[in-house]
Amino acid sequence: MKKIPIAILGATGAVGQRMIQLLHNHPWFEIAVLTGSDRTIGRPYGELVRWVLDGNPPPEVAHLIVQPSNVVADVAIALSALPTDAAREYEPLWAAQTAVCSNASAYRMTTDVPLLIPEVNPEHVNLIDDQRRLRGWRGALVTNPNCSVIGIAMALKPLVDACGIDAVQVATLQAISGAGYPGVSSMDIIDNVIPNIANGVEEDKIETEPTKILGVYGSAAIALHTMKMSAQVTRVPVIDGHTALLSIKTNKKISIEEAHALIANFRAPELVRGLPTAPTLPLAVHTHAERPQPRRDRDAGNGMTVSVGRIRSCPINDVRMVVLSHNTIRGAAGGAILNAELLVAAGYSGSR
Amino acid sequence: MKKIPIAILGATGAVGQRMIQLLHNHPWFEIAVLTGSDRTIGRPYGELVRWVLDGNPPPEVAHLIVQPSNVVADVAIALSALPTDAAREYEPLWAAQTAVCSNASAYRMTTDVPLLIPEVNPEHVNLIDDQRRLRGWRGALVTNPNCSVIGIAMALKPLVDACGIDAVQVATLQAISGAGYPGVSSMDIIDNVIPNIANGVEEDKIETEPTKILGVYGSAAIALHTMKMSAQVTRVPVIDGHTALLSIKTNKKISIEEAHALIANFRAPELVRGLPTAPTLPLAVHTHAERPQPRRDRDAGNGMTVSVGRIRSCPINDVRMVVLSHNTIRGAAGGAILNAELLVAAGYSGSR
Amino acid sequence: MKKIPIAILGATGAVGQRMIQLLHNHPWFEIAVLTGSDRTIGRPYGELVRWVLDGNPPPEVAHLIVQPSNVVADVAIALSALPTDAAREYEPLWAAQTAVCSNASAYRMTTDVPLLIPEVNPEHVNLIDDQRRLRGWRGALVTNPNCSVIGIAMALKPLVDACGIDAVQVATLQAISGAGYPGVSSMDIIDNVIPNIANGVEEDKIETEPTKILGVYGSAAIALHTMKMSAQVTRVPVIDGHTALLSIKTNKKISIEEAHALIANFRAPELVRGLPTAPTLPLAVHTHAERPQPRRDRDAGNGMTVSVGRIRSCPINDVRMVVLSHNTIRGAAGGAILNAELLVAAGYSGSR
Amino acid sequence: MKKIPIAILGATGAVGQRMIQLLHNHPWFEIAVLTGSDRTIGRPYGELVRWVLDGNPPPEVAHLIVQPSNVVADVAIALSALPTDAAREYEPLWAAQTAVCSNASAYRMTTDVPLLIPEVNPEHVNLIDDQRRLRGWRGALVTNPNCSVIGIAMALKPLVDACGIDAVQVATLQAISGAGYPGVSSMDIIDNVIPNIANGVEEDKIETEPTKILGVYGSAAIALHTMKMSAQVTRVPVIDGHTALLSIKTNKKISIEEAHALIANFRAPELVRGLPTAPTLPLAVHTHAERPQPRRDRDAGNGMTVSVGRIRSCPINDVRMVVLSHNTIRGAAGGAILNAELLVAAGYSGSR
Repeated sequence: MKKIPIAILGATGAVGQRMIQLLHNHPWFEIAVLTGSDRTIGRPYGELVRWVLDGNPPPEVAHLIVQPSNVVADVAIALSALPTDAAREYEPLWAAQTAVCSNASAYRMTTDVPLLIPEVNPEHVNLIDDQRRLRGWRGALVTNPNCSVIGIAMALKPLVDACGIDAVQVATLQAISGAGYPGVSSMDIIDNVIPNIANGVEEDKIETEPTKILGVYGSAAIALHTMKMSAQVTRVPVIDGHTALLSIKTNKKISIEEAHALIANFRAPELVRGLPTAPTLPLAVHTHAERPQPRRDRDAGNGMTVSVGRIRSCPINDVRMVVLSHNTIRGAAGGAILNAELLVAAGYSGSR
Repeated sequence: MKKIPIAILGATGAVGQRMIQLLHNHPWFEIAVLTGSDRTIGRPYGELVRWVLDGNPPPEVAHLIVQPSNVVADVAIALSALPTDAAREYEPLWAAQTAVCSNASAYRMTTDVPLLIPEVNPEHVNLIDDQRRLRGWRGALVTNPNCSVIGIAMALKPLVDACGIDAVQVATLQAISGAGYPGVSSMDIIDNVIPNIANGVEEDKIETEPTKILGVYGSAAIALHTMKMSAQVTRVPVIDGHTALLSIKTNKKISIEEAHALIANFRAPELVRGLPTAPTLPLAVHTHAERPQPRRDRDAGNGMTVSVGRIRSCPINDVRMVVLSHNTIRGAAGGAILNAELLVAAGYSGSR
Repeated sequence: MKKIPIAILGATGAVGQRMIQLLHNHPWFEIAVLTGSDRTIGRPYGELVRWVLDGNPPPEVAHLIVQPSNVVADVAIALSALPTDAAREYEPLWAAQTAVCSNASAYRMTTDVPLLIPEVNPEHVNLIDDQRRLRGWRGALVTNPNCSVIGIAMALKPLVDACGIDAVQVATLQAISGAGYPGVSSMDIIDNVIPNIANGVEEDKIETEPTKILGVYGSAAIALHTMKMSAQVTRVPVIDGHTALLSIKTNKKISIEEAHALIANFRAPELVRGLPTAPTLPLAVHTHAERPQPRRDRDAGNGMTVSVGRIRSCPINDVRMVVLSHNTIRGAAGGAILNAELLVAAGYSGSR
Repeated sequence: MKKIPIAILGATGAVGQRMIQLLHNHPWFEIAVLTGSDRTIGRPYGELVRWVLDGNPPPEVAHLIVQPSNVVADVAIALSALPTDAAREYEPLWAAQTAVCSNASAYRMTTDVPLLIPEVNPEHVNLIDDQRRLRGWRGALVTNPNCSVIGIAMALKPLVDACGIDAVQVATLQAISGAGYPGVSSMDIIDNVIPNIANGVEEDKIETEPTKILGVYGSAAIALHTMKMSAQVTRVPVIDGHTALLSIKTNKKISIEEAHALIANFRAPELVRGLPTAPTLPLAVHTHAERPQPRRDRDAGNGMTVSVGRIRSCPINDVRMVVLSHNTIRGAAGGAILNAELLVAAGYSGSR
């Protein structure tokens, strides 16, 4: 099979680098175009990038000349790791012609833009038809959620379906890689915790995005889920892997054994199960009392499996649990790639 | 003034060491006796101790010969840093003759034993009269709360008094020093989070102890407060300083401004205010959006001030806040010393 | 090909775990026997092990019942991760019948025991003939060097051959995993450095073992290399990856360009090059001024490539460089496995 | 005594903050002027500063309005924490009128500028007479050494005097605070080591500055010491405290006992001993095999005592040792303040 040419918008940042790393030897996609900021345009990627991941940039991208983000290239898919402002400006240009899978927050809550987790709400891709009709695009724009939201929404999904959810208290312990590079100063985080991220905006996202992800598609919009969410976030000295502590109030009573079984037995819809980046288990349940842990569990399912542990009752609400996900793979670059694969499988990419 | 001779029970562990460090140049107390485990008895403290704090043991204790914990010495006050089992066995022996201020959990929830935070429930010392009557002791036994509970209970106190509390969701990020020495293996905590402490027991304490601390003294017992508490605890790579994220459901509505003012204006009762180890401010309110932080705020008030920040509303409950306290000072050794000072001031120590 | 059955002696410790992890899907070997301490004998490995690596123990060993280390099993090869005292006692029992590849220090400097790095001194395997003759063994005992020594000896090898070495000043920054589990207390290493390891013994090994590794085989013994070595070691808050700073006095002058080329062009002998665990590059030279770094470079060549950087002149000696190696892969478990592969290839294992 | 008014140039950076912190309640000095970059001029210090130390800025400076660095204020002393380029431009302006004690590297190696450690080379202040004569200044410019050099030079001083030094091999493990704020990205240093600082420039300073510090004053210049130095530097995940591993070749043989005694008995000249910031012990010798350690020993003597341990012989050279100093106190802000105190005591400040 000839591989599908794709572009990575904002390829020099931490998420762009992770996209490149994950696409190394991808069975469907090959990187044809990398875009970057003014400072980087016209230079070979391998020379200019400050590679923050392990090892070095893969050789297949080292020679690519960085292109401007505002010139739409002839590719089937564009993965966007653009900063918010640039995403707001450039993603619609690309979406007019190609399928854009964005990690940026700019359009996540826009009415006709899917906020997509393939295992959770693949039917939201139908919004693309509305989007094309309304905007006259030949391409499409889909987004993946905030890096903390993905794991939380995935862990909530089986309970939403089985017993309904009224309210969720969330506390997070988030990894430094979520802030990009250089991101968090070492002077702020070694032997320390920062009890806030982005001055409240991270909490707003966690309190908002799940209601769209878990909402119901209908007539050119998503009916938001009515669950109430409260998020209190912190930054901790961990490289990768966001931990979330959940206390959930369900609509219908459910036993801990049932909750455990629902989460352990959760599987992706068949269309999604065969995607190259989809993990065998979207959710892996731990029974060891001290798991999941970021360093030991973030790479489960090549970083795409969300780990859930300590499923237990709550003196105030109904179910408590610990949710751990790899924030730059499942929560960002891998999430965007899985969305791209879904678009291909669902026939929205114009390719394959 | 002649100083009051005191004993430190279990002086070689991390909390015992902190007691020694804090008593260096104490205006009222002088260390007369140190006790330790079988391995250490009969040896000079300075030679055998594996000092885990900064610097070295103070010279005034280096030459003291370690005594057995089961032989009651002629001192006015005994500070106990004994492990739980040893505390259960030896503290009553000492309490029969002297005033024991214990950091151990063994007797915290025992009916006639005060669980004391001088700024919060100094009237609970009245239980000592019951204790002496019931047990025939000449001494006394009082305890300080679990290291996480102290900060939480202190931060809740002004709200309990002003508007009542129905329920509290707690998530903690706890420092490694809370596990003593050697405690947490570095292989378990660098670049990592452990989402549990003592296999649930830490959470039990946080869900239980505040109901006694914030309860009402009457007729030889404390009527427990009826608030519901849910605790989810984690261990993080921080040396000292426990962070707690609270979401509080009050009985009576209260504005965030009122909550802020109540906490900022909270002061100890006059009897407590003059104690040598009492901080000027029991609670310090931060308005900077990224504070309090363990490394930057744990030493406020010489480690005895509890720092509170991000006081704000909650989409589910009424008030959220971040509470930070020094776990081995306010939450352990300093808490025990402040209790000892209260006993002296209240006339329960047989000295002064 | 039928796989060669092997035993892992001391399989429950950190190095034993790493051996198991690395042997998962090994093309030649399959784990037939795991041995452990008294506490563990007779129990299934998967139940008793406190797994300290990422993820969980591979399923193929989970059901194996742990055997005593003093009962020699019928396997072609035994990899030993025994503690020093147990190694001293049990390894000769096994070596009498099978090929033992030991990571323990007990016999490293014993005259007729090879201290082996396949890329550096594969001809030292000839000592096995002497060993068998002298001891009447049907098996063999070979050892791999101390975890810091392996990287240093490999980096020195091309210079030893090309220009001779008179003296080497070494300073190391060693990872916590080198101390096993629980190993280093987090209270000792977070925000800290410990300027010593094993009270000088680690430095003794670094000052001694390279002289045997780089020595010359002849008539039932190795003529030790005459280079002088000085080692100053430290423990730093790094999970895996030992960094060594070298300042080398050569016998013959050599330009930095030549030194760079010698190291960059270093390759294993042909016999070694085809071994499954041998990396393509034994030594990888970095030109980036801030590399190699433990977190970013320890996994080069699946943890078997030693990274060398900052090759430059010295105001006192001749050549300085930074050497980085994965201490539990190349420096321990992987080193032992590569030795086992060499024994098979060289016909010393009684198998294949 | 009326306090001496001083200015802090470059008061908003990490070193400027440390100067302010250390001058809180200083017996001789009071802060009269703070200067900062364009962005900060005209604003109250307490409002604009991003305070990176523990706690908060002292109240006495919070209301001071930040002044431009190029307008010389009427103060007796200016402490300079300016960046190199600004130091090069503005320090001579100030030195023309007032005594400047600079932490910047711009003029450290300039012929007529003392590179001063009061306990080591107080007689180098005589250069000020030459400086004034040559430049027509009424003030003066003195500098303190690089943060790593101070501890090294202090530890070498007793040996230089007693037996002479031919060569020193240095390896350092440096704290992140040495890079200022935000300085080192947490993505670069957690679970990691960076084997270089400032692309070789840090090593140049360590190889150069000690030869001036330990040189001999005479006729308007310092005759540089002839010792050869080799430095290999690293950055490690430590907040404060630089560790240096030294291997020293002496001119005259010296026993380890003598070396130990020389260092343990080292005292400052009498003039220096009485200065407010001078520690009782300039050098403290540790005999515990695992000390000194940055977290446990950096605050010795309020951060002004240099800790020396593991004094032992070397297989290549003569004496090895571990040297630990607080890089932002003794190695920067405290060093500059001690220099200022020496200028006052020696009559070079125009005050007192």
